Amino acid sequence: MRRIRARNFIRDSITLAAIGMAATGAVCEAAADQNLAPAVNVAGDKVLKFDWPEVQIGTGEYAEGPTGVTVFRFPRKAMGVVDVRGGAPGTVMTDYLRLGYESPDIDAIVFSGGSAYGLETTTAVATALKDDNIRNGFWNNTAVTAGAIIYDFGDRRLNEVYPDKKLAQAALRAAQPGVFPQGAQGAGRFARTGGFFNCGSYSGQGGAFRQIGNIKIATFVVLNAGGLITTRDGKIAACYDDASWPKALKTTDLLAAIPLSRKAGWNGVPRGGDNKNTTISLVVTNQKLSNAELQRLAVQVHTSMARAIQPFATVSDGDVLYAISTAETGNERGAGGRSASDLNNELGTADLGAIASEMMWDSILASIPDQPKAVAPSRDYKPQGRDIAAFAGKYVFSPFVTLEIKVDGDRLFALATGERPAYAIGKDKPVELLPVSPGYFTVPDRYPLTLRFDGPGRLIVNPGHWQQLGLRG
Amino acid sequence: MRRIRARNFIRDSITLAAIGMAATGAVCEAAADQNLAPAVNVAGDKVLKFDWPEVQIGTGEYAEGPTGVTVFRFPRKAMGVVDVRGGAPGTVMTDYLRLGYESPDIDAIVFSGGSAYGLETTTAVATALKDDNIRNGFWNNTAVTAGAIIYDFGDRRLNEVYPDKKLAQAALRAAQPGVFPQGAQGAGRFARTGGFFNCGSYSGQGGAFRQIGNIKIATFVVLNAGGLITTRDGKIAACYDDASWPKALKTTDLLAAIPLSRKAGWNGVPRGGDNKNTTISLVVTNQKLSNAELQRLAVQVHTSMARAIQPFATVSDGDVLYAISTAETGNERGAGGRSASDLNNELGTADLGAIASEMMWDSILASIPDQPKAVAPSRDYKPQGRDIAAFAGKYVFSPFVTLEIKVDGDRLFALATGERPAYAIGKDKPVELLPVSPGYFTVPDRYPLTLRFDGPGRLIVNPGHWQQLGLRG
Amino acid sequence: MRRIRARNFIRDSITLAAIGMAATGAVCEAAADQNLAPAVNVAGDKVLKFDWPEVQIGTGEYAEGPTGVTVFRFPRKAMGVVDVRGGAPGTVMTDYLRLGYESPDIDAIVFSGGSAYGLETTTAVATALKDDNIRNGFWNNTAVTAGAIIYDFGDRRLNEVYPDKKLAQAALRAAQPGVFPQGAQGAGRFARTGGFFNCGSYSGQGGAFRQIGNIKIATFVVLNAGGLITTRDGKIAACYDDASWPKALKTTDLLAAIPLSRKAGWNGVPRGGDNKNTTISLVVTNQKLSNAELQRLAVQVHTSMARAIQPFATVSDGDVLYAISTAETGNERGAGGRSASDLNNELGTADLGAIASEMMWDSILASIPDQPKAVAPSRDYKPQGRDIAAFAGKYVFSPFVTLEIKVDGDRLFALATGERPAYAIGKDKPVELLPVSPGYFTVPDRYPLTLRFDGPGRLIVNPGHWQQLGLRG
Amino acid sequence: MRRIRARNFIRDSITLAAIGMAATGAVCEAAADQNLAPAVNVAGDKVLKFDWPEVQIGTGEYAEGPTGVTVFRFPRKAMGVVDVRGGAPGTVMTDYLRLGYESPDIDAIVFSGGSAYGLETTTAVATALKDDNIRNGFWNNTAVTAGAIIYDFGDRRLNEVYPDKKLAQAALRAAQPGVFPQGAQGAGRFARTGGFFNCGSYSGQGGAFRQIGNIKIATFVVLNAGGLITTRDGKIAACYDDASWPKALKTTDLLAAIPLSRKAGWNGVPRGGDNKNTTISLVVTNQKLSNAELQRLAVQVHTSMARAIQPFATVSDGDVLYAISTAETGNERGAGGRSASDLNNELGTADLGAIASEMMWDSILASIPDQPKAVAPSRDYKPQGRDIAAFAGKYVFSPFVTLEIKVDGDRLFALATGERPAYAIGKDKPVELLPVSPGYFTVPDRYPLTLRFDGPGRLIVNPGHWQQLGLRG
Repeated sequence: MRRIRARNFIRDSITLAAIGMAATGAVCEAAADQNLAPAVNVAGDKVLKFDWPEVQIGTGEYAEGPTGVTVFRFPRKAMGVVDVRGGAPGTVMTDYLRLGYESPDIDAIVFSGGSAYGLETTTAVATALKDDNIRNGFWNNTAVTAGAIIYDFGDRRLNEVYPDKKLAQAALRAAQPGVFPQGAQGAGRFARTGGFFNCGSYSGQGGAFRQIGNIKIATFVVLNAGGLITTRDGKIAACYDDASWPKALKTTDLLAAIPLSRKAGWNGVPRGGDNKNTTISLVVTNQKLSNAELQRLAVQVHTSMARAIQPFATVSDGDVLYAISTAETGNERGAGGRSASDLNNELGTADLGAIASEMMWDSILASIPDQPKAVAPSRDYKPQGRDIAAFAGKYVFSPFVTLEIKVDGDRLFALATGERPAYAIGKDKPVELLPVSPGYFTVPDRYPLTLRFDGPGRLIVNPGHWQQLGLRG
Repeated sequence: MRRIRARNFIRDSITLAAIGMAATGAVCEAAADQNLAPAVNVAGDKVLKFDWPEVQIGTGEYAEGPTGVTVFRFPRKAMGVVDVRGGAPGTVMTDYLRLGYESPDIDAIVFSGGSAYGLETTTAVATALKDDNIRNGFWNNTAVTAGAIIYDFGDRRLNEVYPDKKLAQAALRAAQPGVFPQGAQGAGRFARTGGFFNCGSYSGQGGAFRQIGNIKIATFVVLNAGGLITTRDGKIAACYDDASWPKALKTTDLLAAIPLSRKAGWNGVPRGGDNKNTTISLVVTNQKLSNAELQRLAVQVHTSMARAIQPFATVSDGDVLYAISTAETGNERGAGGRSASDLNNELGTADLGAIASEMMWDSILASIPDQPKAVAPSRDYKPQGRDIAAFAGKYVFSPFVTLEIKVDGDRLFALATGERPAYAIGKDKPVELLPVSPGYFTVPDRYPLTLRFDGPGRLIVNPGHWQQLGLRG
Repeated sequence: MRRIRARNFIRDSITLAAIGMAATGAVCEAAADQNLAPAVNVAGDKVLKFDWPEVQIGTGEYAEGPTGVTVFRFPRKAMGVVDVRGGAPGTVMTDYLRLGYESPDIDAIVFSGGSAYGLETTTAVATALKDDNIRNGFWNNTAVTAGAIIYDFGDRRLNEVYPDKKLAQAALRAAQPGVFPQGAQGAGRFARTGGFFNCGSYSGQGGAFRQIGNIKIATFVVLNAGGLITTRDGKIAACYDDASWPKALKTTDLLAAIPLSRKAGWNGVPRGGDNKNTTISLVVTNQKLSNAELQRLAVQVHTSMARAIQPFATVSDGDVLYAISTAETGNERGAGGRSASDLNNELGTADLGAIASEMMWDSILASIPDQPKAVAPSRDYKPQGRDIAAFAGKYVFSPFVTLEIKVDGDRLFALATGERPAYAIGKDKPVELLPVSPGYFTVPDRYPLTLRFDGPGRLIVNPGHWQQLGLRG
Repeated sequence: MRRIRARNFIRDSITLAAIGMAATGAVCEAAADQNLAPAVNVAGDKVLKFDWPEVQIGTGEYAEGPTGVTVFRFPRKAMGVVDVRGGAPGTVMTDYLRLGYESPDIDAIVFSGGSAYGLETTTAVATALKDDNIRNGFWNNTAVTAGAIIYDFGDRRLNEVYPDKKLAQAALRAAQPGVFPQGAQGAGRFARTGGFFNCGSYSGQGGAFRQIGNIKIATFVVLNAGGLITTRDGKIAACYDDASWPKALKTTDLLAAIPLSRKAGWNGVPRGGDNKNTTISLVVTNQKLSNAELQRLAVQVHTSMARAIQPFATVSDGDVLYAISTAETGNERGAGGRSASDLNNELGTADLGAIASEMMWDSILASIPDQPKAVAPSRDYKPQGRDIAAFAGKYVFSPFVTLEIKVDGDRLFALATGERPAYAIGKDKPVELLPVSPGYFTVPDRYPLTLRFDGPGRLIVNPGHWQQLGLRG
């Protein structure tokens, strides 16, 4: 349903974008905007549901990217802290969160794709709360939103659509309690993982919820890590293996082989390209904690994620974790490590942290969508030149990616003629597109790459959940 | 010229806003936006001009607020650091600035009114650079903008218009090098100072530029401080004195009297209301500094501002200073305190800091606009009832401020009938408006307060630079 | 050899200590000092050896504690950074390390037992370098030492001897390159692990060294963690299991059972007592890194330790990691994530971090000493009253631990009559000491507990590496 | 009285030191210690007295340096925070203070001379509290001390005696409530100020106390600033002016002249030498504050010091301020800026900060001792060669400063023959000592320099409060 609606506006928006972007550098308000139609609350196949009115969630997506945003709203405000790791964070309003106030200030935590541009979604949620008269300009009723972003551009993307003000505000306005789409949805719409070993696998967003006595805990993650998602028994949860790798590799094997791998030209860290990876995460509890305790919780859980993502918190990861207490249960307490006094209403901070850490591991595992499988060329279907002649032409995906499709006899070839290549289709020499079925082709590679000629003048790369569209110029 | 244009759209926009805002909480995209027309590069009376292509400045304003934004763009990117003080900062992207990288990452520093809502301007500048194809989504060409905001709402404002995406992008696109409007312009459009002693005086934004040999330094400040702006000889630069104060008070006198003043009910810290004050500032130099040195410069200059603003960096101030090096001159150097080696190209870090600190003091003084003077009621002009009958009615300034004007014989009275009062016009009992000239009235008070009935159904409070408009319902 | 020498002075020092401490609160210089004789460079059974002149290591111990100190000296100074986690750090000189200077400032990193008192060892190393005229008072030749401590007091200790100035300076002066004792040595002399699940197992200090091309890396850890040391296949490396636990529990099983365990009174977090746990660690490389890169390395490796210690970085852990670059190889480089350019001389920061993280895991595993086994009471040896009569009396271990040994017929009983209990020997009712062999007894418990009457008036608890001595009053 | 006692041991200790230090680099415990006798609670001429049992103060000095330590003890522990500024801090235990716990943890704040070596005094106070059985090894009763140091070495010092463990413990044990020596005492024993303009004037430690209703506030500072101490009317409080300076210069004049001065060779920043300056300070209040409020107080007061010290917080200043709340009065309160509710028991945080800032200014002014005046050569006293012959010889001040005194006819000359010069007595050519009175000479210079031959084989440089002694070899 969603996808059909999305397709309806793909054409126009892409066209508009192409035109607008052609006016490079011009000061042109109309063209400058992305001018896309948001799709909100895309549930996806897997949805985490839980009963907690104080945690409202809204997701928004631009199918054109694809990319998206996830908004966590706390309707009565809540106390929040932040723990920033790694070498490339993009954040909003974190200085305020470091002041240690015991007051409930936070209206929403906003996670987004779009690299630094996606930070627009965090500020947009604040202004939407103002525009909608939910918050106003009194200093003690000002909307306070904090957020962080992932880098979902680079070699994965044939355009640079980013989540913007319009998308974030639509997501906020559609937010509802207790519904969280798992997988490649929301801010995790086009996340990937394992780039440290060139895995190129898809990831997304994941969540977990648990209630112990009266204490509720939820953990959420948008995972775009360079590291390998690792199961509790050490297995790699998602990776397009290199052909040379032995079977049944574990994470520890790949880590042990780093020095060797780098030397031998074995697959390793991407060289020069797509090396910005980030995992952004959120822990929410209804237990009342002091600000210092909540900060300890944040540090403990964030650190624990190094088990499920290996390596983690590197110079290329801008990892950020927020922790929120809605303070609905638990007693007034001092600081320091406290043992559990009433297990229905209060857990010790370290216990709470250990439990939330396990839940975060679950969230990380839940963030992995079903991976597209490689499609083999057909053994039977052999198109003739006349079958494919209509596919020839230059397909524009964005101002910097254009694919030129040429017919040579009965064979079809693709060449990237814009600034940038498109996956295995480079700029130097044409790559043959091998037929799978009428209008549907593949390029054998470590990573699945398929192309579908979808009606007149439309070329869809990797048709399916992560598809991107080019229009013949 | 500008103001005339502004008036043209005031009516409609205010009307729209009033309608839109009445639909409280409704998910209504059209109404939710502020829907105002930006005015950019408003020069004002005093303009600082200097020759430095690498520092481009754009300002934007909404006359309806009034409120505004100031964008400092570094067209070839520059290295930046941040120093955050005080108890109420609102910031974007500061975590990245703390990583210590020696690389030029920053595209722009954005200062804004509008409290937390004004942070939308910082993110908007990044997305405008993307939308205009000046930056893109490659990780090493992503637009990075950092910013901070002041709180220009509260008892000074009869509406809550805030600087938004549209305004910031217009300001960016109009930016030009070496032109900086001084006073109540840009982000300092409706700043005030001295609230710690209830001064209620206007402030704004100020700048200073100096070249020593080849070394260029510029300092900028948007000053919305609770503290008193203080001259180098200890005088209070701007304050509406309390009637009980002795003449020729100096800053040090008021500070010494704090305990006494609070006890005796003498004027003191505003109780409960408008206690969010912030000074945001920027130091730029073309000298190449290491990241650590630039951080030391930031700390030194920020700390020095406690001389010119007293008190400074309190729990109610969200003071933030950014420091930028465009690295156009100077040699590669190590860290630590270094003496000057070549005074044409390089100053020691402490010297540079001391010079910039003096310049920042100059900037602070330059931020003060001419203060409106109190207007005395006319001794001669005594209107009759028929002269003022047409002024009666309810004037709506915003969803929460409405002034009801009533005629009682030959006298005119005003009462605030919305949620909030309007300066000396409270909600409890009508205040008499004393005539100054036809259609022009005043309410004697510590702070100048005048009202002009400006054509049919329009009431302007404090006509002039800081005017705010109400429309008869 | 060492232990025999230690025994020679145990008697006097304990006696002195007991007397001195009896003069509670008196201002008495002579008695106030610990007055113990240091033992240095105790190699232990397992020693890590490596070839690196720039990394000198000295360890010192007080057998009376037992407790100790480990000094890492960089004879030509080196650049250092720090990453602090968890809720109970004890540190010296870390603010300086956060300034980002690119200069080699650090003379030594000092790790110590003794909780906050052990910080005396860090400052003592600086003053020893001054006293020995290796460093002086010129600002650019001042000895700079940074350090951290573990909490090796509490219920494990029958006295409160701590590593002091004398011990640290002796350890420094005995330092030599490339020799690092593994296990319960130096600062890890009386470390424990697994307290989060009441494991009560012994840990210590561990190290690892690796050379890749010209690049040298060493990792060291002093591990006193509440968390479980976990192997790469998820097993618990050291724990005295609770009797109720199923066989072959893995770390993940215990973590999953936290909520249940706390509720059911199953073994869990120690209640009230010994809840300060800390892991302090050090990464050293000879690769030249920028300060920002070295900081990224520190964060990455520190975070990775959450795999080998679970949970990690809790409110009760004062975890601190230092990272040092001796800058002996590698090129001048910028910041940010860099891919490997010359694998003999330079690794990318993330690669370096991933490799060091694996080495730190190895160091953690290497920190575990052989655990004492429980000793079963003898089936054959049944002493008569006359055989044990001479053991009766009050044995003083410290001003707050005294064991009263009583004979009742042919049975021997122990009661703690001082302020504090001694392991399973409480203050409320006598505990029977079951005979193992003449003069040697055990108390069956989750944790091994043995007592040896060692000559006239001497009682050794847990004779062996972790023994503590009481003298009959 | 004190000074006489000091003289008694000067000879021996200096001799021992000279011998010990000759054994350069030897591992020699006996010689390695400083082996000096502490003098404690040196009241000086000016003493601040106040009534506050919860604030105990002890000072200790080594006359041989001279140098010293100041201990502030809070006998029932108190909550503390820290604010670190500038580019060269030396600190202990500050990480713990940043965790935001609401608990009273701090036993003492310790300020010391001796650069990094002086940090030994902070750790020594903790171990003394342990050795004296005031604190023990239970995690919630461990002595926690934090501290900071100033750099009182460099060109001011003819030896490098530093405050050590023995001195600090003596100072602690002699601490008493409500007595604070002002001026060149304790940690401020040999502080200087104004080095940024080569002032070379003496400073020291200063304090102020005030009670408002039930609220007590005390501020203390040990001032070793490069900046100029400035009065409230802008005057320079202490500086040996350069001969070329106009009369009645104000601080603002010197600051304005920096660029010019550096260019013209006019007096400016010390080149290469003594450029480590630090101001360490302490605010104590008995008002109960949240940890976040106390942190705000620290930031506000620390920043305010830029008024009284100009410039402040430069790359060469390692400024550190601690703030302590003994929580004896005031109500439980939330965070944020709070207005005063009950002026007898509670001040708003910003008010408290403003008041403490004024007090800190007073403390800074109180830190200035009477400056020694230059002594003019006598017009009348003209010694003959036989009068001065006995003065010839080599006087050893330390392993690196030796003055050779030579007689040439009736004139006396001095040459520095060790590693370092001694003030105006350089290493290149002899400087004539001009007679003042028998045995008393002067060297005319910007800074007062006198020498007294004090009995056989003793040469005192700058006899008086800051004297340093050399012994003929």
